[in-house]
Amino acid sequence: MGADRAAQNYLDGVRVLDLTQFEAGPSCTEALAWLGAEVVKVENPKGGDPGRSSFRGKPGQDSWYFLLFNANKKSIAIDLKSPSGLALVRDLARRADVLVENFAPGAVERLGLGYEAVREINPAIIYAQVKGFGAGSPHERGLAFDMIAQASGGLMSITGEPDGPPLKPGTTLGDTGTGMLLAISILGALYRRKTTGEGERLELAMQDAMLHYIRVAFAATAVNGRPAQRNGAKLLSGQNAPSGVYPCKPGGANDYVYVYTSRANPAHWQRLLEVIGRTDLIGDPRFETPGARAEHEEEVDAVIAAWTRRHDKHEAMRRLSAVGVPAGAVLDTLELQNDPDFERRGIMQVMRHPACGDFKMPVWPVRHGGATLPVAPAPLLGEHNAAVLGDWLGLSADELAKLRQDGVI
Amino acid sequence: MGADRAAQNYLDGVRVLDLTQFEAGPSCTEALAWLGAEVVKVENPKGGDPGRSSFRGKPGQDSWYFLLFNANKKSIAIDLKSPSGLALVRDLARRADVLVENFAPGAVERLGLGYEAVREINPAIIYAQVKGFGAGSPHERGLAFDMIAQASGGLMSITGEPDGPPLKPGTTLGDTGTGMLLAISILGALYRRKTTGEGERLELAMQDAMLHYIRVAFAATAVNGRPAQRNGAKLLSGQNAPSGVYPCKPGGANDYVYVYTSRANPAHWQRLLEVIGRTDLIGDPRFETPGARAEHEEEVDAVIAAWTRRHDKHEAMRRLSAVGVPAGAVLDTLELQNDPDFERRGIMQVMRHPACGDFKMPVWPVRHGGATLPVAPAPLLGEHNAAVLGDWLGLSADELAKLRQDGVI
Repeated sequence: MGADRAAQNYLDGVRVLDLTQFEAGPSCTEALAWLGAEVVKVENPKGGDPGRSSFRGKPGQDSWYFLLFNANKKSIAIDLKSPSGLALVRDLARRADVLVENFAPGAVERLGLGYEAVREINPAIIYAQVKGFGAGSPHERGLAFDMIAQASGGLMSITGEPDGPPLKPGTTLGDTGTGMLLAISILGALYRRKTTGEGERLELAMQDAMLHYIRVAFAATAVNGRPAQRNGAKLLSGQNAPSGVYPCKPGGANDYVYVYTSRANPAHWQRLLEVIGRTDLIGDPRFETPGARAEHEEEVDAVIAAWTRRHDKHEAMRRLSAVGVPAGAVLDTLELQNDPDFERRGIMQVMRHPACGDFKMPVWPVRHGGATLPVAPAPLLGEHNAAVLGDWLGLSADELAKLRQDGVI
Repeated sequence: MGADRAAQNYLDGVRVLDLTQFEAGPSCTEALAWLGAEVVKVENPKGGDPGRSSFRGKPGQDSWYFLLFNANKKSIAIDLKSPSGLALVRDLARRADVLVENFAPGAVERLGLGYEAVREINPAIIYAQVKGFGAGSPHERGLAFDMIAQASGGLMSITGEPDGPPLKPGTTLGDTGTGMLLAISILGALYRRKTTGEGERLELAMQDAMLHYIRVAFAATAVNGRPAQRNGAKLLSGQNAPSGVYPCKPGGANDYVYVYTSRANPAHWQRLLEVIGRTDLIGDPRFETPGARAEHEEEVDAVIAAWTRRHDKHEAMRRLSAVGVPAGAVLDTLELQNDPDFERRGIMQVMRHPACGDFKMPVWPVRHGGATLPVAPAPLLGEHNAAVLGDWLGLSADELAKLRQDGVI
């Protein structure tokens, strides 16, 4: 279930030169690829993006990790250590609309592909960079990976049990969360460029990006002047009952249902009492107002858990949700992967990969005109050498053969 | 430190009719506002967006929460229960480029402002919706809040200690994470519309959006066919040492430093040993390869913790980071709020609010042309009634006075 291919080309004709690896950069350029941009990954001929061998699937093949973050892209393999390889990439940069890179600090400049150098040959370029820490930060030269950004960007301080250590959220928000914000700025710059022809330099630090995703915690700090606290599965504010995960049968690691009633809608609590057969508690002063429930949180939790323990999480969610109580089963990745609902609705699609076989994966989750956008395979290393160098640079078959012979591509 | 106002108008002339509340919708339209779109919030004259009274700051004033998610927007207060109020909003929809809504399922259609109705009067509209669950999902009519999306979208199943219950990540990714993906699709549709004039319907479910942010966990599941597990502060894959938070002095709730050495770069481990004064371990077969270190993880952790306990987290980060070991102090929201580095670099800016006073807050974290975009205050309820109804609809002062008198605005 996907829109037809033509309908995908929101970014028709936009050429993205993709000098990214692992996840923060690739998640950004992949968003542009979903929308129809021509995204060309430039990779080291010896192994390519190191993400190709992370979380390896079958031996000798590209990893699932790589497939997930590089759908719908092209790949050219060019040796950046050879002068003619570098010259090729400079020529590609001259013809690109967007360049994205997330090398370690200083690396792209050492290659002679820094912003000033590229702007000189292509003043209208949108040149976008991801680093761990911002220019001018005391940690500007520091290396960062997803978890470093999540630690130094505040997320870990608010994730975990109140009396336990800081934990890493399961999401790789330091990477993909950063990639999404950069994609938004690139798209804004592209929109302006279409009218004015202006390029732009865009820079995003992973640490800085994290602040954007914990703004509610900053609101809490603004209220009471204290660091926002870890609060398990409950809300940071800690002033809402019920809110949390409640145990379900048969008691496995993820047999829980999240139940929440909003302070803004008193009907939620009454509906909840009806579903769980405790209408005797309607009007009970311990539970009558949001303030009273927050004060009697342990009793609230006990009342709900007595009911959830008698049901499996799917049934609990179904019954609560059906009558307008916000509820969500804690679903694990295998359940999500195997649930036919996501494939039926086009949120999961099968990537038909020429070497790795079929791989069912989550795609860009927005429905455009009623359907999600179609997935095309992540490229093999260097798969589009001839196509891209021919199309962008007009290289002939003979010139390509020479480059191949010289080990440049 | 912000670009001048003119430089901000990436989305010059783009009119967004904003029918959103709380966070998932407002975070999306705020991203468009940062980029210079004219975002007009339509609010209930009686109290407005319920986010105005969440996490309240000073009594009777807009909450910090509201300020954070509604910077750079305009507000008009219109009674949607009155026929003339509804007619006004329909007229605004006729003149908008983009409409965004995140009402409960079915609500916007009941108002007569559903996609079909709006498309009829404005075929080029980009009409974007956030719901908790996707059209066609068994939970399609279910209510969702941030935590419900995080539970049913897989995040909680991979957040927490290995032997503990699922936890809620501190980030409100169910809301803001959804808003960012929808903003990307809106911008793609705007780019195409500029050439073709075509509108588009966009729909995003919060549950579906979560899958996008946990794709690494899906890669882990694809490798071993099992649900991805919770793993505390360590990597999901559990095959990397060191990776985790290490205790620092003086031992407070957030006195930890994250230390990580990449399997892909053997130099990290050696640099780490040099900093912590354990060069005696260079060449030790227990630690010589990534595989060996993973096998001796407890010993690795003990060696590192013995050093981190003697330093505070800032010093530990500084010393490790300086020599190229990925490291991040676990910073809390108060430390981030008070660190002058973020204000100096423009990542935090002061919103000068006419009623709430000065509020230092994280802004859009991408640097455009070397500087972040400038913050303008979140609007007072109905602040732009006259300006927007005059500008978009050409209403005269007399017509506005009549609407005010009739209680419509």
